[in-house]
Amino acid sequence: MRLLLLLAVLCGGVNSSVVLQKMYGRITSPNFPNTYPNHKERTWNVTVPRGYAVRIYFTHFNLELSYQCEYDYVKLSSSGKTLATLCGRDSTDTEEAPGNKTYISIDNTLMVVFRSDYSNEKPFTGFEAFYAAEDIDECKQLFDGEPLCNHYCHNYVGGYYCSCRIGYILHENKRTCTECWLVTEMYW
Amino acid sequence: MRLLLLLAVLCGGVNSSVVLQKMYGRITSPNFPNTYPNHKERTWNVTVPRGYAVRIYFTHFNLELSYQCEYDYVKLSSSGKTLATLCGRDSTDTEEAPGNKTYISIDNTLMVVFRSDYSNEKPFTGFEAFYAAEDIDECKQLFDGEPLCNHYCHNYVGGYYCSCRIGYILHENKRTCTECWLVTEMYW
Repeated sequence: MRLLLLLAVLCGGVNSSVVLQKMYGRITSPNFPNTYPNHKERTWNVTVPRGYAVRIYFTHFNLELSYQCEYDYVKLSSSGKTLATLCGRDSTDTEEAPGNKTYISIDNTLMVVFRSDYSNEKPFTGFEAFYAAEDIDECKQLFDGEPLCNHYCHNYVGGYYCSCRIGYILHENKRTCTECWLVTEMYW
Repeated sequence: MRLLLLLAVLCGGVNSSVVLQKMYGRITSPNFPNTYPNHKERTWNVTVPRGYAVRIYFTHFNLELSYQCEYDYVKLSSSGKTLATLCGRDSTDTEEAPGNKTYISIDNTLMVVFRSDYSNEKPFTGFEAFYAAEDIDECKQLFDGEPLCNHYCHNYVGGYYCSCRIGYILHENKRTCTECWLVTEMYW
């Protein structure tokens, strides 16, 4: 146990985790644009307000290539699911490099993990990525297979609300519409 | 002159103007969903922050139809230009009704004018519209026919910024990129 603790203290610089809560920003590999160090792991947890997703793309990507990115990689995940495991410089049959692709988070959080193994034969410059919060158009989503709003759905930056046609009023659930005469009868 | 002033006082209820500065909202004709009154003019000036445009669409539209909408109408304009002059219920060869169309402002302001003339043969229920601020993707725009950013453009909700490739630095104008060795020479 003491040995483990000692190892954790000695290796303090190896793993680090950063929390990012701004609406946009930049993430780079350690020492970017210079060669990234061996045996390093860094995590960025991006969180934006609810009603938004996180969009991320790469302007520079040059990592060691290994079969299925098992040595060095950048891993993007959201809501517990892996969006992509990236390595190399260009995509191959078995490995993915980001190129001009844009990745979108599943919920309002995105986890970015960079990892390098204990040795690299060549110097690799790593990556530079930019992220930004993006409005989710909730009106295009479904709720239990149904549209979110019974009649009209109004999206705005950061949220949405429902409204009804003339002669209907919005139910307490803020989703479904009830005919006005039915409401009158209920209160009779 | 006195007569004009008297008329203006007497007709005080005819014209009215509303300033709207929220990120989203609802606009309806006077008395909606009941018949709108004759001889009425109402103006809504929607202003959202810079970096946003105003999106508007109609969930109800039933105005008197007249040739080129010269009697009753809803006029949408932005940045001094008319986006649409709307009347009737459905579009004809010479008149436009909104249907499911969405209108987008040119800048961060939208002016909506409703006008009814002195007489309507039938009762018309008017209109119900919803508007919301929408992020402008500045990275898709041009500046003097050129892309906004020399190298990379990063859009975010409400704004944008530029960045440069490795070996370049961003000029003071925040748009163009200069090679680092050129900058070193300049300061030599």
